[in-house]
Amino acid sequence: MRILGIDPGLNITGYGVIETIDNSVRLLEAGVVRTKARRSMPERLLELHEGLTEVVTAHQPHVMALEQLYSHYERPRTAILMGHARGVICLCAGQAGIDVKSFEPTKVKKLMTGNGRAPKHQIQLAVKIQLNLTTLPEPADVADALAIALCGHHESRIGIGLTNFNL
Amino acid sequence: MRILGIDPGLNITGYGVIETIDNSVRLLEAGVVRTKARRSMPERLLELHEGLTEVVTAHQPHVMALEQLYSHYERPRTAILMGHARGVICLCAGQAGIDVKSFEPTKVKKLMTGNGRAPKHQIQLAVKIQLNLTTLPEPADVADALAIALCGHHESRIGIGLTNFNL
Repeated sequence: MRILGIDPGLNITGYGVIETIDNSVRLLEAGVVRTKARRSMPERLLELHEGLTEVVTAHQPHVMALEQLYSHYERPRTAILMGHARGVICLCAGQAGIDVKSFEPTKVKKLMTGNGRAPKHQIQLAVKIQLNLTTLPEPADVADALAIALCGHHESRIGIGLTNFNL
Repeated sequence: MRILGIDPGLNITGYGVIETIDNSVRLLEAGVVRTKARRSMPERLLELHEGLTEVVTAHQPHVMALEQLYSHYERPRTAILMGHARGVICLCAGQAGIDVKSFEPTKVKKLMTGNGRAPKHQIQLAVKIQLNLTTLPEPADVADALAIALCGHHESRIGIGLTNFNL
């Protein structure tokens, strides 16, 4: 199974594609889609849509894994901008007929490290170990995207009743 | 000039296309794109994208007019969901190469009625009069979309120094 993990953002969206065979997992591709801040919102969303559509077309993932919706209430402007990017990302999944699974940030940390409040560095290290990488995944957006993709893997592996995306 | 006004929402997105020739204006089409609440977010955004793309393809508007971003801080969940829909709507504009103009809700009310705090009914009445409709525009989403489209018209008619105008 191929899983596309995404860390959504209007400026930078991190993505990571992993392939799982039984319990083993390997990295296929990871990177970021950047949009130019001086451009208009429609142009930036177009850049994001095109960049992500390329990734989906190249790797034909079976599942998209995303961070859950409501985690930025304390910064509403960021949350709404992120909502724009996330909408376009979900649309990409819809257009490709891919299921979307979403994970709360604390669930991502717990599934990756056993600690729902693990610091960033610990998550990066867990990603490095689980994917047999030679260096820590950089930038943070890529590390987060890979962590979320790995959660998609762990979830299907351990079969725990994580919520499907229904919002 | 053809202007597409949009009142974005995940459940119901109102739209209205008007055509302006000098100072005169007429309604070309108005309606709503509904998405099924029981479907997943990617499916709903796909419905919205397809519905809106149809409207854009049919009428080839020159401008899209939208309500401004940050007006729902007090209801963050709604704002983030609306952000998802708005992202897909802006993407439609980007894909068609259409400029997007956005208006604060109070600006819409002021441009339409002269009163930035005008009630809904007064806005509906102003839309009816300005577009020579035989009945009040319904539902509210269509009335709001047409009001925003008309603001796009008034803005281009009055000129850029809109903020200095005392209407």
